[in-house]
Amino acid sequence: MEAQNSSFIGFENDYEESKAVLFGAPFDGTTSFKPGARFAPPAMRQDSWAIESYSPYFDSDLEDLKLFDYGDLELPFGDKKNALRMIQEHVQEIIDANKIPIMIGGEHLVSLAPVKALSKKYEDLHIIHFDAHTDLREDYLGEALSHATVIRRIYDQVGDGKVNQFCIRSGLKEEFEWAKKHTHLEKFTYNTLPSCVKRLKDKPVYITIDLDVLDPSVMPGTGTPEPGGIDFHDMMNIIKELSKLNNVVGMDVVELSPKYDASGISTAVACKTLRELVLATVK
Amino acid sequence: MEAQNSSFIGFENDYEESKAVLFGAPFDGTTSFKPGARFAPPAMRQDSWAIESYSPYFDSDLEDLKLFDYGDLELPFGDKKNALRMIQEHVQEIIDANKIPIMIGGEHLVSLAPVKALSKKYEDLHIIHFDAHTDLREDYLGEALSHATVIRRIYDQVGDGKVNQFCIRSGLKEEFEWAKKHTHLEKFTYNTLPSCVKRLKDKPVYITIDLDVLDPSVMPGTGTPEPGGIDFHDMMNIIKELSKLNNVVGMDVVELSPKYDASGISTAVACKTLRELVLATVK
Amino acid sequence: MEAQNSSFIGFENDYEESKAVLFGAPFDGTTSFKPGARFAPPAMRQDSWAIESYSPYFDSDLEDLKLFDYGDLELPFGDKKNALRMIQEHVQEIIDANKIPIMIGGEHLVSLAPVKALSKKYEDLHIIHFDAHTDLREDYLGEALSHATVIRRIYDQVGDGKVNQFCIRSGLKEEFEWAKKHTHLEKFTYNTLPSCVKRLKDKPVYITIDLDVLDPSVMPGTGTPEPGGIDFHDMMNIIKELSKLNNVVGMDVVELSPKYDASGISTAVACKTLRELVLATVK
Amino acid sequence: MEAQNSSFIGFENDYEESKAVLFGAPFDGTTSFKPGARFAPPAMRQDSWAIESYSPYFDSDLEDLKLFDYGDLELPFGDKKNALRMIQEHVQEIIDANKIPIMIGGEHLVSLAPVKALSKKYEDLHIIHFDAHTDLREDYLGEALSHATVIRRIYDQVGDGKVNQFCIRSGLKEEFEWAKKHTHLEKFTYNTLPSCVKRLKDKPVYITIDLDVLDPSVMPGTGTPEPGGIDFHDMMNIIKELSKLNNVVGMDVVELSPKYDASGISTAVACKTLRELVLATVK
Amino acid sequence: MEAQNSSFIGFENDYEESKAVLFGAPFDGTTSFKPGARFAPPAMRQDSWAIESYSPYFDSDLEDLKLFDYGDLELPFGDKKNALRMIQEHVQEIIDANKIPIMIGGEHLVSLAPVKALSKKYEDLHIIHFDAHTDLREDYLGEALSHATVIRRIYDQVGDGKVNQFCIRSGLKEEFEWAKKHTHLEKFTYNTLPSCVKRLKDKPVYITIDLDVLDPSVMPGTGTPEPGGIDFHDMMNIIKELSKLNNVVGMDVVELSPKYDASGISTAVACKTLRELVLATVK
Amino acid sequence: MEAQNSSFIGFENDYEESKAVLFGAPFDGTTSFKPGARFAPPAMRQDSWAIESYSPYFDSDLEDLKLFDYGDLELPFGDKKNALRMIQEHVQEIIDANKIPIMIGGEHLVSLAPVKALSKKYEDLHIIHFDAHTDLREDYLGEALSHATVIRRIYDQVGDGKVNQFCIRSGLKEEFEWAKKHTHLEKFTYNTLPSCVKRLKDKPVYITIDLDVLDPSVMPGTGTPEPGGIDFHDMMNIIKELSKLNNVVGMDVVELSPKYDASGISTAVACKTLRELVLATVK
Repeated sequence: MEAQNSSFIGFENDYEESKAVLFGAPFDGTTSFKPGARFAPPAMRQDSWAIESYSPYFDSDLEDLKLFDYGDLELPFGDKKNALRMIQEHVQEIIDANKIPIMIGGEHLVSLAPVKALSKKYEDLHIIHFDAHTDLREDYLGEALSHATVIRRIYDQVGDGKVNQFCIRSGLKEEFEWAKKHTHLEKFTYNTLPSCVKRLKDKPVYITIDLDVLDPSVMPGTGTPEPGGIDFHDMMNIIKELSKLNNVVGMDVVELSPKYDASGISTAVACKTLRELVLATVK
Repeated sequence: MEAQNSSFIGFENDYEESKAVLFGAPFDGTTSFKPGARFAPPAMRQDSWAIESYSPYFDSDLEDLKLFDYGDLELPFGDKKNALRMIQEHVQEIIDANKIPIMIGGEHLVSLAPVKALSKKYEDLHIIHFDAHTDLREDYLGEALSHATVIRRIYDQVGDGKVNQFCIRSGLKEEFEWAKKHTHLEKFTYNTLPSCVKRLKDKPVYITIDLDVLDPSVMPGTGTPEPGGIDFHDMMNIIKELSKLNNVVGMDVVELSPKYDASGISTAVACKTLRELVLATVK
Repeated sequence: MEAQNSSFIGFENDYEESKAVLFGAPFDGTTSFKPGARFAPPAMRQDSWAIESYSPYFDSDLEDLKLFDYGDLELPFGDKKNALRMIQEHVQEIIDANKIPIMIGGEHLVSLAPVKALSKKYEDLHIIHFDAHTDLREDYLGEALSHATVIRRIYDQVGDGKVNQFCIRSGLKEEFEWAKKHTHLEKFTYNTLPSCVKRLKDKPVYITIDLDVLDPSVMPGTGTPEPGGIDFHDMMNIIKELSKLNNVVGMDVVELSPKYDASGISTAVACKTLRELVLATVK
Repeated sequence: MEAQNSSFIGFENDYEESKAVLFGAPFDGTTSFKPGARFAPPAMRQDSWAIESYSPYFDSDLEDLKLFDYGDLELPFGDKKNALRMIQEHVQEIIDANKIPIMIGGEHLVSLAPVKALSKKYEDLHIIHFDAHTDLREDYLGEALSHATVIRRIYDQVGDGKVNQFCIRSGLKEEFEWAKKHTHLEKFTYNTLPSCVKRLKDKPVYITIDLDVLDPSVMPGTGTPEPGGIDFHDMMNIIKELSKLNNVVGMDVVELSPKYDASGISTAVACKTLRELVLATVK
Repeated sequence: MEAQNSSFIGFENDYEESKAVLFGAPFDGTTSFKPGARFAPPAMRQDSWAIESYSPYFDSDLEDLKLFDYGDLELPFGDKKNALRMIQEHVQEIIDANKIPIMIGGEHLVSLAPVKALSKKYEDLHIIHFDAHTDLREDYLGEALSHATVIRRIYDQVGDGKVNQFCIRSGLKEEFEWAKKHTHLEKFTYNTLPSCVKRLKDKPVYITIDLDVLDPSVMPGTGTPEPGGIDFHDMMNIIKELSKLNNVVGMDVVELSPKYDASGISTAVACKTLRELVLATVK
Repeated sequence: MEAQNSSFIGFENDYEESKAVLFGAPFDGTTSFKPGARFAPPAMRQDSWAIESYSPYFDSDLEDLKLFDYGDLELPFGDKKNALRMIQEHVQEIIDANKIPIMIGGEHLVSLAPVKALSKKYEDLHIIHFDAHTDLREDYLGEALSHATVIRRIYDQVGDGKVNQFCIRSGLKEEFEWAKKHTHLEKFTYNTLPSCVKRLKDKPVYITIDLDVLDPSVMPGTGTPEPGGIDFHDMMNIIKELSKLNNVVGMDVVELSPKYDASGISTAVACKTLRELVLATVK
């Protein structure tokens, strides 16, 4: 008698044979408003079975890919540096085996770890970032490492012209000013995504989706809900565009905080976003 | 002193004088993910009084129709066959009296019962079906009778070319393939609804609305929320189109599960959908 | 050691130096369906700190205006007349000091008090009103003062041709009929807002936003959710239009009922609506 | 076909044949903290079917009594005087027919109405009152009629030595002082209940149970939860004691506010309290 | 890289070496009031990590036993007979391997399956049953298999004098009458448990704990909350008594319905009850 | 016009004249299970107005003491060392002014800061600690500073024989063993509290109450609910005992996490505990 699998739907292969590796990084130690993103990975695994593995959008099925679900890392909540180090080591092991890391946050700060690992492997790493917030502060109440500074820290890794930000609708005036010089930042919308995707078609790309890019009506279960976001049809348009990329080397979805949404619709949105993103980019 | 009525708003006539009969079928015994649709009928009755009986969309009023609210059937939760039989007998009594049955689910399986009764009376019965899910499985974990197979079972009653499905966004690949041969199935949208309505203008039509056709942001209180659905404006467009039908012989709204939405907005959506549907089709 | 401020974000000036004065009117004694709007002001103050004081829509910042937050009035829940009198006296003090009153409800009835005070000061006062409901009843179950009659009572103050209503989607047939003669009422949409704003460009205008004008998916936390409303992008379009007014002499946002929305998204919507409205109209 | 009954469990007789009449008084217009007691009567009716009509405590069954459920009065929320008048008239009709009124609140203020009606019929009317709060203020923020003054107003009807209060654990110092002269008030506990019951054995007695007398752990769904209350076993001890009274002429349970307790346990407690109270005192 | 375990705390051994086998039976198809017990097993696994594996009550640790967690059976919700058959087969496999089955429900009906399997192996099987409800109906709305009939069905397996019921506080009069002849039933309390345990000291015993035996204040997350139950200290007293049994051959905890208790305290109670029960009886 | 106070009830004096100073320390960065204690201080301030300032237990009133409410410290969530330093400096300022610090957490780790400040001033500082958990780990997942190690760190400050722990019901075996040598730890109950209080009558004492010492039924809104705790009557007994201390030099109540308890009863319990504790010990 063997213990039953409790993986995300469709991620039922062994590690060895798999092309991509899913794992959870349940850390939310720097959340500034409402913590709880740590509960996202198990919530998504459990509710993923209420959607299908088959996508009528792409007419393809997770079961036709080779996908492995590692489960969750055990991370120390009060120690952001150690948590990031542990995630980075885990990603390193995955990319050393030539597999694609797929991470479920946790808060957005966790995205720094895979970017650090991947930027060593891919000199020319580009970032495509969807979010309500700029996340470009130099520090937040004195902290350099925070979910409000993570894209600035990612920029520190990859440099000018590599970070592409879409749908941003909240930040300090200084952040928007800074972005004009250092990143490609589109306010509110994603009209420039097609040209960005065209430009990065064959480049190594890391995709990070802060789920609060979606309107709070679609995604109430998140730590810092910001009205005025995109809806799920927009998210599908975005993912269809991303499917034209040929070299996605890693990805994450972060900032689901399931306990703030007892109805479970936020978890369903996170699961379906992940399913479609994987079907679109894991090739 | 007489006990006060607790009907749905505007359904305050006696049975004899009424043209249409509302009743609840609070059964959810085959729900695969989150049960609770059994609580929909009383929740809708109670909250219906927070909307008006008058519709500014149609400039008409439920009070100008002759409508009766029977209340709810008492159904055995663990016995789907008996439950369906009891609903069917109840519908038979209503249509024998030349009245239109209007059913509040319960889960979607309950729709099979009125279709069985009506398909005996109307040889040429057509179905118009709105849903997130295909519901076309031959069986679900071995069960032929399930909320995931109900449209397939309805098809068994009415046959090829009679079932029209709109806004479908989830299912197995096999279901979509099967539908190509046996039903009219429009994925995601309802662009073909006008031509369908035109074709069925004078035919006997049964309308079944699985409320999860609406996006989970609009309708969080449902058992299997599926992101990417239509919004309430779409629902009004659909109902305006349905108002062109001349022979609607029965209808239902199913899969509201009110306890998963403490804010009550799902119940409000269900109530208003029912009000508009009745004003559009009971003539 | 001084007690820490707990104002709405960006409302951190002293009364004397301020141009506009925010205050809460936590009264909900006539609510017909779900009471609880009394809890809105403190909820908004607390959660306002999760949004920024800077708006990327207007590229401006609450901190660049001079704004004071008084806190909340203490109002007797069971005595609507006294509550209205106390609010009116408070507004009188504010406008006597040539400052702009900004009120957070409470239920919609509270809007009557500032209009009474302002209509004495400005003979030509006009009203711009956003709501799901007409609020034009002569009385509600015999009460002349109610959140269902408030715009009729406001009309009693300002007279024919002064009240402009947008996005209305619920009411009695009589109310819609009455409006044809006495107010400008646009059903469902706000297409006529630009011409209205043009006409009232330099007139004294009071703006009242019943937050249930937003769709319940966007604003679940309200006492009488009415499906079919506008989304937050519409609200931003409306506010951009309102920014063309040169003489907004008072404003309110009412009918947030935060305890019906545990996710907090309704409070976030109310806070951002208020921020943008203030940035658009306080000059 | 006749509309299905939706009465409280066991209250299924006609008015004429009944010995006692249940009705709801869904008024909560003077609630000082969290309103919502208006939703108690329908919530209790619906969930009453999840308990049995048979009590193993008394080995008796509601079905063996003759009980009628009128449903709810329609009361104006913003007008406490009218609401009280309407309740009083309703009670008058019941007692004129020599039946026992059983009222579900609503907030505690509603108890004044039956006492007014009954104190005219029974010169020697006594009150037995269970509550967390004294409810003895002369006025509350200037209001003489309030859920914080109701027992004082009841005292105004019945006079010195007629009001008996148990388990009281919150109030102003003045209220406790006042009570020493005018009522029998036992703080925290109900040790003096047996002697009180003995004394009032054959007197006409009205029983009013503010459900917040129970500890908030047992009864979270109430408008002003006050820690330190009794548990359900205490409530059963109290009711067993009350069963020794021979002339209970009316009773109420008030201050259930079901929307603050999504788990439904408060409603279950209210239902079972009512069942046992009726079995103990309706003879 | 191997997938991370997601077992119940302390159940981390392999099947082969283990003495007892935990599994979930997530079936709730006959629940009469509020369904949702199907969600108990994964909720308990996840939250079990918030308690310790060490018990200061028994000064012992789950890690010192050999325990295996199989995960959950996949059961058809609409087919109670098949579900019971599948559970029974699973238990058969466990007891054939001379291991002790430990089941997490699901609704109470699932307890019938292990009793059927065990009563074949142990001719002299006794049942110790804790519950708010008698569960002794011959049928429920015509169904012989139901969570309201399960102990009657278990009686059908084991016969007169074998079923011992404690703390029962709800049922039909007929059930209590029937119990007088066929089971040992103690109403409300567990005073006779010590003598029962003494009598069954060396007999094969199956323990079934319907968690609604606990008061709803302690255990709000259950499908049919019944006020007046025991508290957690009572539960510990009970378990200490049960620790004197020498031959417990199987056990279950059923009827946790976690989605009705967003605070999570019911799940914590279920986890700690299971931990203590296992430490007390697995030898 | 001056901004309205939003202090805790009864804490309405100025700093200068006050004897004790209340402040919030909204830090929860090391919480191991469910974060959210950061939201406790504003929740308690707001809901404190639903209880009275007068205590019928002590027949005394907060308004008769001189009490100041500072409001909340602004603390960096991701930086526990800085957060502790900022709290300690704040406490230092209070005790330098010869006032008594009263802290609302936040998680339990925050208690370390006042103890550090006070142990410098009072060489002979003793600790009285109420909790479900030992909190005596040397480290938690490698972290020396954690809500699971805080009492060990406090011990590091004050040394052997100074820490008195009551009602402890969860921990590692090692912690209980360690406690035998270094602290006074009473498992489950508080029978030894009277002798402890007698011994410490005139010593400087710091009282720290982790509210999860209360049973989860009484206090569901906490991060690590542990069944089997004391009830509110026990808490009152404890506080009455503590009132015999003559030199309480500081105190805190920690680990209320209000968002996990939508009913608000946990916040009410925290408020009343604080009121009684202050009335008992501030002299």
